[in-house]
Parts: sequence; C-alpha cells; structure tokens
Amino acid sequence: MELSSKILEKAVNEMALLPGIGKRTALRLVLHLIKQPAEQTQFLAEALQNVRQNLKFCTNCNTLSDYEICEICSNPKRDKRTICVVEDIRDVMAIENTGIFKGLYHVLGGKISPIDGIGPSQLNINSLVNKVKNEEVDELIFALSSTMEGDTTNFYIYKQIQQNEVKLSTIARGIAIGDELEYTDEVTLGRSLMHRIPFEHSIKNN
Amino acid sequence: MELSSKILEKAVNEMALLPGIGKRTALRLVLHLIKQPAEQTQFLAEALQNVRQNLKFCTNCNTLSDYEICEICSNPKRDKRTICVVEDIRDVMAIENTGIFKGLYHVLGGKISPIDGIGPSQLNINSLVNKVKNEEVDELIFALSSTMEGDTTNFYIYKQIQQNEVKLSTIARGIAIGDELEYTDEVTLGRSLMHRIPFEHSIKNN
Repeated sequence: MELSSKILEKAVNEMALLPGIGKRTALRLVLHLIKQPAEQTQFLAEALQNVRQNLKFCTNCNTLSDYEICEICSNPKRDKRTICVVEDIRDVMAIENTGIFKGLYHVLGGKISPIDGIGPSQLNINSLVNKVKNEEVDELIFALSSTMEGDTTNFYIYKQIQQNEVKLSTIARGIAIGDELEYTDEVTLGRSLMHRIPFEHSIKNN
Repeated sequence: MELSSKILEKAVNEMALLPGIGKRTALRLVLHLIKQPAEQTQFLAEALQNVRQNLKFCTNCNTLSDYEICEICSNPKRDKRTICVVEDIRDVMAIENTGIFKGLYHVLGGKISPIDGIGPSQLNINSLVNKVKNEEVDELIFALSSTMEGDTTNFYIYKQIQQNEVKLSTIARGIAIGDELEYTDEVTLGRSLMHRIPFEHSIKNN
C-alpha cells in the first residue's frame, strides 16, 4: 500500500505493529484521528506513554498497579491466606468482576509452553512457591485455562509444593449456566458428571 | 469492566475511542504495548502526534500530504487538465496503486448525505467548481461510490458546471475481472450489458 505522505506512513506502520491490526485498519484509525480534535490524539499518545512508563507490577501478586503494592493486596479486608493462581491480569479482572472471591491473586504472566519457548523460569512461579514454603498460604486455587499448557503449569507448581501443607483446589469445570446439555462437548459434559456436587449444596448457593 | 489501575484505565478508555475498538480489544492492545520494549510505545505516540500536528491537506486537491502541495499535484509529468473526483484519500491510494491514471485528483472529503447531516457546503465542491469555471480542466472523471449518496453528489456537481465546456465521465461499472456471471447481482450485470464496449477495444487493452 503506497501512501501519499511519509508522516502518515510512519504512523500507519507503528499502528500496524499492534496485534490484530493490519495496514488497512491502521490507516482507518489514523485517518479517524486526523478528523477528530487534536486533543484526542494528544490524550491518547500521553495515556499510552504514561501507561508504559508509570504502570508497575505489584511486588506481591504481579498484577498491574499504580503502586508498588496493588489495591487488592493492600486491602485489609481481603483474605491474605487464600491465593488464586491466574495466568494474566485479565483473569484477575474477570474474577474480580464476579465479586465472589475475597482472597488475593498470584499472576504467573503466562503458562509453561515449550512450543512457544516459555519455561518455568520465565514465569513468576518461584515467588509463589516461596509464599507456600514460608507458610503464608492456607489454600491455593488454580484458575489457569484447561489446556495442555495450563495443566502442565498446574502440575509443575504442584510438584514444587507437594511437601508443604497447603490446601489445593482448581476452579470447577462444567456446563455454563444457561447452556443446553445437547450442545455441550463430551469432555466438559463428562467432567461435569464426574465432579457432580451434592444437590443440597447446589440449592444453597443459588 | 473494572481495571486494577487508574493509569491503565485511562489508556484503555482513550484507545477505545477509536472506531471499531471496544474496551476488551483496547485492553489487549495496551497490555501488548506493556510487554514490548518501551521504545515501541514511544514511537507510536510520537508518530500519532506528528501525524495529527504536521500532516497537511494539499491546497490544490485536498489529499493528505507532507507539503502544502502534494507530490501528485506538484509532479510535472501528471496531466493537470484531467481531474478524478473521489470521496476520500483512500480512494486516491487505490487508484494510484493501479498505475493507470496520470491526471490529478480532487478529494471531496465525503458524499452529500442529508441523513448524516452532510450537505454540499461541508465538502470541497466549490473549489472543484471554480477549477472548471476557470477553464483549468479538460475532463472530470467521477469516481464516487455507486450509492444513492454518490449519485446525488455527482448530480449536484454536474448541475453546477453543466454550462461549462468540460468532458465528464464516470468510471466503468461492471463485472470484476475473474468474477463469474451467474453470481453477479442483476443491477451490475444489467449495467455491464447496457455499457458494453466494442470487442476490438477490449482486446487492445488486455
């Protein structure tokens, strides 16, 4: 795609480096910005630079935060001895949005995936293992995605801490609320039968 | 969507102002930038500000350009008396990429569309009409999209200049090269029959 202007071309090329944004979309976005008031572009540029320069990783749980210790970890009302292990900050947000979980998180920053060249040393596994070994944790809840990589990561962490006294659990897999049995894949349906829960228990929580 | 950081939230909100980018996509893009070297964010922010501040509209044809007069208009090899009327800078790029057209362009900046509140005064129609009235033009080629709005715009311009001696043409509509007859819509097929061209002519240009 030949552009009529070098300045435009530079902006389009930089924009097209973002994932899922091709040259045509990048051009559409840049042309949109040109039509908007100049402040919008300025605010966007400043916000992006600010986020890249000033956003911190919480030194305790590794989630993104404005401060050294994130608002969840520094909240005295949260149960510091229950830790939910997640891949990514987006999982933290998803779980926070449920309003159900009152413990802390531990963000690994990914899953063990040899095919992508990601080994345990690139993830925040050591700090998690240390928390368990220092007996700071009562329960560890694994909430990684149920893929081969997720299971491998769970198992790797399990092997590191199996000597320690800590309750381990994983989030329940099953048929989503509102979904119909006939359209559910066999693995999920099989698991949800295998891990069936007492009926009284299911009533109580509804 | 509740985010764990105000800085992050600001960047996501600014990003989500772009067309076709929702909050989730915006978050994905910002998280991607955080994982990349800081220079990438800086280059993107600078390129966007640069494009917004320094990109000019060519004073002759209204296309986007680094200079007051764009490279097409200032090119002595281009035929200055043949002008192709287009909606948008993207149309200029599309036609330039064919390498067929050697005249100049005139970018209207949109189409007359009462439903969107766009009237003739918001488009660069007057400067085009003046070019014709000052007898600077031999041929005007209409290359607007063949919609109700495109046809209205064509007709509006035609009414303004019909007293002047200028050759008017529109780009050919028909079945795209490689398309099959049976899958073509009736209007296009009908038009391509109506505007059939002499066989010898079609051979000469292949």
